[in-house]
Amino acid sequence: MTILDIIEKKKNKQELLPEEIRFFVNGYTDGTIPDYQMSALLMAILLNGMTDRETFEMTDAMLHSGDVVDMSALGGTVVDKHSTGGIGDSTTLALAPILACCGVFVAKMSGRGLGFTGGTIDKLESIPGFDTALGEGEFFDVVKRVGCAVIGQTGNLAPADKKIYALRDVTGTVNSIPLICASIMSKKLASGSDTILLDVKYGSGAFMPDPQSALELATKMVAIGTLAGKRIGALITDMQQPLSDHVGNALEIVGIVDVLKGKKNRLYYEIREVALRLLALTGKYTLETAEKAFQNAIDSGNALNKFAEMVEAQHGDPSYILHPEKFEIGTRDVVTASSDGYVTKMAAADIGRAVTHLGGGRMTKSDAIDFSVGVIMHVAIGSKVSKGDVLCEVFHRNGKGLDEAKNLIANAVTIGNSKPDEHKIAYAYVSKDGVEMY
Amino acid sequence: MTILDIIEKKKNKQELLPEEIRFFVNGYTDGTIPDYQMSALLMAILLNGMTDRETFEMTDAMLHSGDVVDMSALGGTVVDKHSTGGIGDSTTLALAPILACCGVFVAKMSGRGLGFTGGTIDKLESIPGFDTALGEGEFFDVVKRVGCAVIGQTGNLAPADKKIYALRDVTGTVNSIPLICASIMSKKLASGSDTILLDVKYGSGAFMPDPQSALELATKMVAIGTLAGKRIGALITDMQQPLSDHVGNALEIVGIVDVLKGKKNRLYYEIREVALRLLALTGKYTLETAEKAFQNAIDSGNALNKFAEMVEAQHGDPSYILHPEKFEIGTRDVVTASSDGYVTKMAAADIGRAVTHLGGGRMTKSDAIDFSVGVIMHVAIGSKVSKGDVLCEVFHRNGKGLDEAKNLIANAVTIGNSKPDEHKIAYAYVSKDGVEMY
Repeated sequence: MTILDIIEKKKNKQELLPEEIRFFVNGYTDGTIPDYQMSALLMAILLNGMTDRETFEMTDAMLHSGDVVDMSALGGTVVDKHSTGGIGDSTTLALAPILACCGVFVAKMSGRGLGFTGGTIDKLESIPGFDTALGEGEFFDVVKRVGCAVIGQTGNLAPADKKIYALRDVTGTVNSIPLICASIMSKKLASGSDTILLDVKYGSGAFMPDPQSALELATKMVAIGTLAGKRIGALITDMQQPLSDHVGNALEIVGIVDVLKGKKNRLYYEIREVALRLLALTGKYTLETAEKAFQNAIDSGNALNKFAEMVEAQHGDPSYILHPEKFEIGTRDVVTASSDGYVTKMAAADIGRAVTHLGGGRMTKSDAIDFSVGVIMHVAIGSKVSKGDVLCEVFHRNGKGLDEAKNLIANAVTIGNSKPDEHKIAYAYVSKDGVEMY
Repeated sequence: MTILDIIEKKKNKQELLPEEIRFFVNGYTDGTIPDYQMSALLMAILLNGMTDRETFEMTDAMLHSGDVVDMSALGGTVVDKHSTGGIGDSTTLALAPILACCGVFVAKMSGRGLGFTGGTIDKLESIPGFDTALGEGEFFDVVKRVGCAVIGQTGNLAPADKKIYALRDVTGTVNSIPLICASIMSKKLASGSDTILLDVKYGSGAFMPDPQSALELATKMVAIGTLAGKRIGALITDMQQPLSDHVGNALEIVGIVDVLKGKKNRLYYEIREVALRLLALTGKYTLETAEKAFQNAIDSGNALNKFAEMVEAQHGDPSYILHPEKFEIGTRDVVTASSDGYVTKMAAADIGRAVTHLGGGRMTKSDAIDFSVGVIMHVAIGSKVSKGDVLCEVFHRNGKGLDEAKNLIANAVTIGNSKPDEHKIAYAYVSKDGVEMY
């Protein structure tokens, strides 16, 4: 078997054998297959596709290229939620304590932000003292004791994915559904949860441009997860505007505290939808009993207290959760409406870029983040506005990136004459039993 | 403009602009575009194709990456013939003197053999003293004085093609009709002839598996050559068996001398077809007057003498042409028929491989060649044989590679019960006026 034989088969639209897929994943990871052969193969995969069986084998080979976390010692149901990324997506921060209150374990490994998307780990680090780099022993202890913990991805999960992704990024081979699927699922399956809810986003602030392609990716991921023996489902959700009104690091923690206190905004409804689906997936709840448990976690204040408890267990200062006004926030400025009308569109990615300009995100992996900057949107798609109304508050440090940010935001919000259709939070739900439309 | 934008366009089946094509050809040649991005683009081109306009621009960019030979100083019609390669294809050796006798210049730059195909330059070097590395001045002098000369490709013709071909060879991106076309045509157009006849071969010993794909390639090459302002045509010919009965280096010179003496075998008829088409292409002949001129060149002995004259002008010993029994030939062995019947198939590539095993070809570019070894086929497709008949004489040196060679040849010749259809020499002729079937 040679890499040229494998390229030849994929070029000719033949299905690759499991041993052929292992050969190129392992060979590329250990350096025996050079970049230029792998990139030719990746382009052939992008253009000719992969079957579910091939995608599963590729996922499996990538997941076994590094450590596979074993969570069986926790002795309970371990759930995970994975979002394909977006703007103002801080759902994990609320879901972890809420789900822990509902009696399932959340042992979450999250990423940092890059480009216009924020990262859960960065947001948590805006809480003074919070440690996102617990060792494996302490991480498991916190999960067992508190019910939830969130740390950064550890060193050796799916190293094959890391190397292949870096090559895809510079060879135009990112937007392949099987390759995206294998990349996400190899990390998910290596991180050891038994029940997984995928949140696949579409729209201007997401990876997938439209609900159809998001549904295609979701269906493929659910098929792969099911083949791997997991309880798995996927929600297709809207990222045509920022998910949270608060975008930025400390600001998103403030927004999450509002939700845990019961504030019913778009973020709240999305978190509820994810929580209900995930609890039902475990088999311990129906959608109805899950809704009661969710409501009780919020109304009782247990979820908010659980969040403070997790922060304390991870060496952070819990008083910031109970008194979010303690967060240092930048100097306020505003962007106002230039005409009367309805907000008809919002370029979510540009709002993410605005926050990056302010210093709240990274352009390169080594950039430092200013936790205090960000924006609070005062409008959403469908809002009625008059000329001069505040569209958005902008929090900056000494004017850094302020002009660029205000410009980006002003252009990101489109004001039109007629009220647009309401945006549903979810478009569809995919499980092994099929697709359910909203 | 970035290479990623160009990859993206080709991935999405959009036509590339001339400046985009120049950008990647020049960028790859000068090293600013790395192998792994070029190989992804080449795979996208292979799978999504290129228009004639794109192929012309790529050819043009590659041809201008190095020297462009100017033959106008010769003051006459300069013709060239290019074969896509095969087994026992020594047509150039006869065509050069025959065409020179017909009053056109042949200033030919040829290649060396690699793998199972032989190279014209290697064959000529089996003539003691023959110099295939004349300087440009001497090369032109010989052409002007004798009418023909054959040398090895000089250093800096289409260096972009050299670099791109080396990458295609190791990334599964060889068999793309636009890329093959650009590779061949960039060298042809850089080498300065005004009239070009392409001999595009199909079958077991050729690049193209079947006549249809050969026709597709030929049509594309004729379109590109016509756009470049050349008089150009293409014959589609059969390479389902070795073109010459003689395969090997010195042996093929012996076979060519037979043809120049008027021996009417398959090689003779193919040479005649190419010569007639090429002479008609120049506009100086019709097919009828070309046939008379061809016949006269052979019958008068002028073509044989012209070959000897060219050999002498290139510092070779012309007595080998007039007395080919002077060539040192290896020790004789034979392969015999294992049953009665008709020869129905011949795996031409395996006969080429057999000669390589004997030492008459190269596995890597640096291998030395033994000119004395090779085979003489006693049968062709359609021959009737009885068990024990000699299928083939094998000439070896001290038994080197003999067992492998005999085995390959025995398996390459299929003997069946019924006489197969006759194989025509040519399948079609393509010119700017269209396709003419044989």
